[in-house]
Amino acid sequence: MSDGMLVIGTRRYSSWSLRGWLAVRLAGLDVREQMIPLADNGQTTAIATLSPNGKVPYLEHNGIAVWESLALCEYCAEHVPGLWPADARARAYARSIASEMHAGFRALRQAMPMNTGRDNRALAGGTTPDIDADITRIDAIWTEARLDFGKGGDFLFGARFGMADAMFAPIVSRLLSYGITPPSPQSQAYMAAVRAHPLVAQWYEQAAQEPADWRLSRFEDIA
Amino acid sequence: MSDGMLVIGTRRYSSWSLRGWLAVRLAGLDVREQMIPLADNGQTTAIATLSPNGKVPYLEHNGIAVWESLALCEYCAEHVPGLWPADARARAYARSIASEMHAGFRALRQAMPMNTGRDNRALAGGTTPDIDADITRIDAIWTEARLDFGKGGDFLFGARFGMADAMFAPIVSRLLSYGITPPSPQSQAYMAAVRAHPLVAQWYEQAAQEPADWRLSRFEDIA
Repeated sequence: MSDGMLVIGTRRYSSWSLRGWLAVRLAGLDVREQMIPLADNGQTTAIATLSPNGKVPYLEHNGIAVWESLALCEYCAEHVPGLWPADARARAYARSIASEMHAGFRALRQAMPMNTGRDNRALAGGTTPDIDADITRIDAIWTEARLDFGKGGDFLFGARFGMADAMFAPIVSRLLSYGITPPSPQSQAYMAAVRAHPLVAQWYEQAAQEPADWRLSRFEDIA
Repeated sequence: MSDGMLVIGTRRYSSWSLRGWLAVRLAGLDVREQMIPLADNGQTTAIATLSPNGKVPYLEHNGIAVWESLALCEYCAEHVPGLWPADARARAYARSIASEMHAGFRALRQAMPMNTGRDNRALAGGTTPDIDADITRIDAIWTEARLDFGKGGDFLFGARFGMADAMFAPIVSRLLSYGITPPSPQSQAYMAAVRAHPLVAQWYEQAAQEPADWRLSRFEDIA
């Protein structure tokens, strides 16, 4: 018996699922996973009927319903200290950039969907100014966080991978997939550390084991 | 001497400013307001240079920087108990719908920008299916929250106007401006209560006193 369930979509593509799954795993919640493969038309009926907002991730834990990745981060962070930074100034920064991620970087997200099976292959058409602006801002966030709060650790706020890292992990995955190297050495080292984190590595391994017929042309056919 | 500043845009139009301002006022933070009138081209240079993400609202409080409305809600809620519901299930619901608001309802937000000077005047071209879907979901959220958690109070989680209400207040304003009546009586009563809340009423009064040359054709000319 587990304490509930976490509903996620195809690991290979579902960036929001990765965020929610990381939050749940970081908090050590004992929930079973319910996987619903994403449909190629973007309308996954089983998710629409299961989840209040019709999207993944969706968590039910001890009778409590939680949806939207950022709300999952807040819920999970209540269970284990330190998943948001303990210092008030760092915590405000972490939540500000997590919120910025939650609603932002749409140009990059649209043009470069997460695909854990794509490795270091640039967009055939190159990037647009809007995508470049997103990358510039992300590079600034990562660099500032690490220099100001990271104190020599591998992650945004130090040695521990926390909720802000969970929110940005799919961005790391995208930049690696589409061969984007942000200018700052701080960002470059951060990307390597996130990719090597045991939970992220586990997600990639599980994604690689997903059946081939879960592959979707709308993601795989991006040149 | 105050403890810092809150940067906001034109009250008449800036829905995100309203959210952040409500959060700050609900928490009783002693910060001065810095008003930067929005520019008609959507690029307000003074905001871009002042705020880390180039947007309002932006809060500096006791040397701590916070941006993005939802992060302001979290920051402010740390200062006063009860601005998120005390009950874990209600709190998870409140944060889920606040996150849903933070990144969602784009069709409605795009077609019906906040304009506190517009009263009960429908879009000349009517609504689209995407807008209708947003309204249906919002109606469901408000109704479910009030019936499940509101316990007879005026607001989403009872008698006290909290962070979830702050996030949805600009939606109430839009529905009133564009003459949209959601089907549920729960939602209709909620809209009246939000509009009558002293802080919301104060915002409207201050908006009405803004100089006429702050009016922007991109908002005023919507038929």
